[in-house]
Order: sequence, then structure tokens, then C-alpha cells
Amino acid sequence: MESVRRLPRLTFGADGIAQGARPLPTEVAVALSFNGSTQAVMMATPADLADFAYGFALTEGIATPDQIESVETVETPKGIDVQIWLRADAEDRLKARRRTMAGPVGCGLCGLDSIEQAVRPVAHVPPSTFRMTPEQVNAAVSALTAQQPLHDITRAAHCAAFWTPSGILWSREDVGRHNALDKLVGHLVRNNRPQGAVILTSRVSIDMVQKIATLGAPILIAVSAPTATAVDLADEAGITLIALARSDRFEVFTHSDRLTKAAHVR
Amino acid sequence: MESVRRLPRLTFGADGIAQGARPLPTEVAVALSFNGSTQAVMMATPADLADFAYGFALTEGIATPDQIESVETVETPKGIDVQIWLRADAEDRLKARRRTMAGPVGCGLCGLDSIEQAVRPVAHVPPSTFRMTPEQVNAAVSALTAQQPLHDITRAAHCAAFWTPSGILWSREDVGRHNALDKLVGHLVRNNRPQGAVILTSRVSIDMVQKIATLGAPILIAVSAPTATAVDLADEAGITLIALARSDRFEVFTHSDRLTKAAHVR
Repeated sequence: MESVRRLPRLTFGADGIAQGARPLPTEVAVALSFNGSTQAVMMATPADLADFAYGFALTEGIATPDQIESVETVETPKGIDVQIWLRADAEDRLKARRRTMAGPVGCGLCGLDSIEQAVRPVAHVPPSTFRMTPEQVNAAVSALTAQQPLHDITRAAHCAAFWTPSGILWSREDVGRHNALDKLVGHLVRNNRPQGAVILTSRVSIDMVQKIATLGAPILIAVSAPTATAVDLADEAGITLIALARSDRFEVFTHSDRLTKAAHVR
Repeated sequence: MESVRRLPRLTFGADGIAQGARPLPTEVAVALSFNGSTQAVMMATPADLADFAYGFALTEGIATPDQIESVETVETPKGIDVQIWLRADAEDRLKARRRTMAGPVGCGLCGLDSIEQAVRPVAHVPPSTFRMTPEQVNAAVSALTAQQPLHDITRAAHCAAFWTPSGILWSREDVGRHNALDKLVGHLVRNNRPQGAVILTSRVSIDMVQKIATLGAPILIAVSAPTATAVDLADEAGITLIALARSDRFEVFTHSDRLTKAAHVR
């Protein structure tokens, strides 16, 4: 399935009205099925779906990469079924999750119980010696612009990228910011989860921090702003949260000790 | 609960490192409970929650405004429970919905059935004589910047606004673009659903078009780009989809006949 389609449109501007076409990202219903049963249907860009499967399984707490036996994608006219098959020993976890997920969609839990279930403690990232200099943060943000082919064409995609001292190693794009991050996480865990920083084009809400914490990345750099609640959570998770990042400036909200030249300010 | 909190941060720029604080939007778990049972927990900005209740109920197909008897909000340390109480005759619809919503969270449906359920036919907007001139579209987009107090402070909120020939009548903001739209829709249906155009600061994905179609608004103007699938759906729903809109130019993807001076181009 193509990730981009050219659609006709009229442009209204100072020069009058012009006919033409614009390339836009496709958005397709992607079902994520574990051992034959759907956990979620996401509207997503139809690319890197095996990465998506691994990342979604991990960040949503369904299965770790070693528990995944195979991933197959089945295209249909209405969407794509990503069929994830787990090893026998992961089946119990899946069943437990099905029980707990019954809550938020109207199966009888009251609001207060549902909130309690939705706002769970966040994982703490493992100890790490990974550090960045301010110059490296600037360089990472500058390098991000060359890693967004879908956005270059369509101006309507989010990007999640992974930086190490060797530069940006990988990036993933999607019409959904959560999906872009899940795809990147999936790729990372399929490649031995190297140490590095995650860079996002999007805003940082708490679900993005939760996913980064589950991955265990020590530094998160975002081009846009965080929510106050996401800052609280990044602090709790031990993540260095850098946001409003441009090629020549950025702001650090939590754990600035991982910025090697910043130590003297605290 | 406050919608904004000032949090400390370090700024790294060409002038060196500076300490300071930045106002950021709060993001809180909001449970939407109907007759005592939760339908969804959304991370949202804690403002305009009664509007949110009415809008979410309508656009998610749970209840129409006349079926809602009362809305109460209960604040807890972990989140806010928005308790929506429906009239007795709406109870059957709620029960039917609970059955169908059991699907996408792993209650046994296979991926293909789940996709079928997720991609439902869209509502067609009712016949309308509402039209806009290109100059009015430009003016509406220009007026939008004055309607975003939360974004002005935090740079991290989405806005949905409602335009009529008298100007922008109302706007709603939220850290989530869907929430901002649901809040606006809720406010509109509580105010006799006047004829007009919806303006969004965000990108247009199919779920945004589905909500606009349920509201029945004939024109949707977005500052950012649409997905290709959203364009298809707007076409099917009879919505005039205007996107990539600035104060001096915009692009029209569907039903351009509602732009009064554009008729001769088709």
C-alpha cells in the first residue's frame, strides 16, 4: 500500500485561483492482533508495520520482543491486519491484559476506578552513562530535517528519530505521533536497543514519556513543547527532557545533569 | 484545577545558559462516565468539561444532547470524573454501544472484523445554503490567532473555533486536538447548533472529519494539512475541506462550490 497519494485541489492566493494537485499521506486502519485477537485498531501510515508491531507490543505492555514469534501483515480493501503471534509462555500475560483492558470502554468500572487504572506508575530508565553536549543537541536537531521524507512531500507527518554520537541512525514517520514513536521503538528493540537519545518533531504528552520510559532511553529531545504533566513524569522516570529545540537553542526541563557542560548551573 | 503551571527550566542558546520558568499546559486524566460506567479516559486540559461531555457523547455516537439529563464533574487527586447522566430512553443505546465497543480491545474479534467495525460509513452533512467567500476564509484564519489564550501562554495547545459571518463566535483549546474539537462541538450543540464553519489549528485526520460530519458543519478550515484518507471522507460526507490555510492563501480539496467566487473554475 502506498504511503502517499496525489489529490487534486484548488489553491486560492494573491495570484488568484489555480488548479493543481498535492501529495498527501494515506491513513489506513491498522489492526494489531495478538494470537488472533485484536488489541487495537489504529489509523496509521502503512509503512514499517513490523516495527510498529514490536514497538506497540512493548510500549503498551503486551509482549516483550523475545516473546514475539512472528509478525505477518494481511492487506484488505478496508485496512491492514498486523498479526502478531506470541510464544506459548506469553499467552498468560496477554490474557491478563485482556481482562484489565476491559475497563475503559464501558464494561462497568466507575470513573474513579478507571482513572486509577489509566494513571499508572511510570518505569524508571536504567542507569546509564549516556551524556550529550549542548552542541550535540543542536546538531541532532539540525540533522532531523534530513530524516523526514514523508513530511517533506506531504507536510503532514510526525517523525521519531534515534541519535547516537555517530549521528541519527534511524527515523520513522507516521500521520500519528504515537505511531511514529512506536515504530522507532520497535526498530530499536529489534536492533539490540543501542544507547542514545530519541528526537520527536511533536509535542510531548505523558503517553509519549511513558513510551520512552518503557524503551529506557535516557534523553528525549522534542521540537515542540511538553505538557506540565509530561515534565512531572519525565522527572519521575529519570529522563532528561529537552524541548522547544531548534538548531541553535533548546530548553531542558528535567535531569539536566546529562548535559555535560550544564553541571555548573545547578 | 488550573490549566497552566509554570515549571523551571534551563535555556541553552547562543547567549549561554539561563535559568527561568515556562508556563506549560496541564494534562489530566478525564474519565467520561455515562450512567455510572466509564466509556473512556482521555488525557485532556481541565477546562470546559461540560462542553467536552456533550461533544464526546455526540461525536462518539453515545448520546444526543437532548438525551443528557445532567453533567457533574468530580475532582480527585489523580484526575477528573465527568459523570454524564442520561434520560431513561437513552439507556438502550448505551448498552448496545457497550457491546460493540468490546471489540477493539481484545475481547475475541479477529483483525479483519475489527477493521470492518472501525471503518464505518460517515454521516452526510445536511443540505445547507451556507457559503463563504475567499476573503471570508482569509479573515477567519487571521481572526483565529486572537482566540488561543492557552496556546499564547504555553505554545502547546490545539484550538477549534467556530466562524459565522459575524466572526469567530467561540473557540475551545486542549492539549489534544480531538478534545478541542469535542469541546467546541459540545458548546455548539448546547447553543442550538448555528450554521457556520469549523476552524482547526491541527492537521486533519479521518477522525476529525467524522466528528465534523456528526456535527453537520458544511465547511472545515484547517491550518495544517489533511491526510489523503481524510480528503476522501470529507468528499463522501459532503464537507468543504479547506486546509493549509494562512491569512492570505488556502487550498480547497473537496466541494469547492461552497466558495462563492470559485464556481467558475470547476
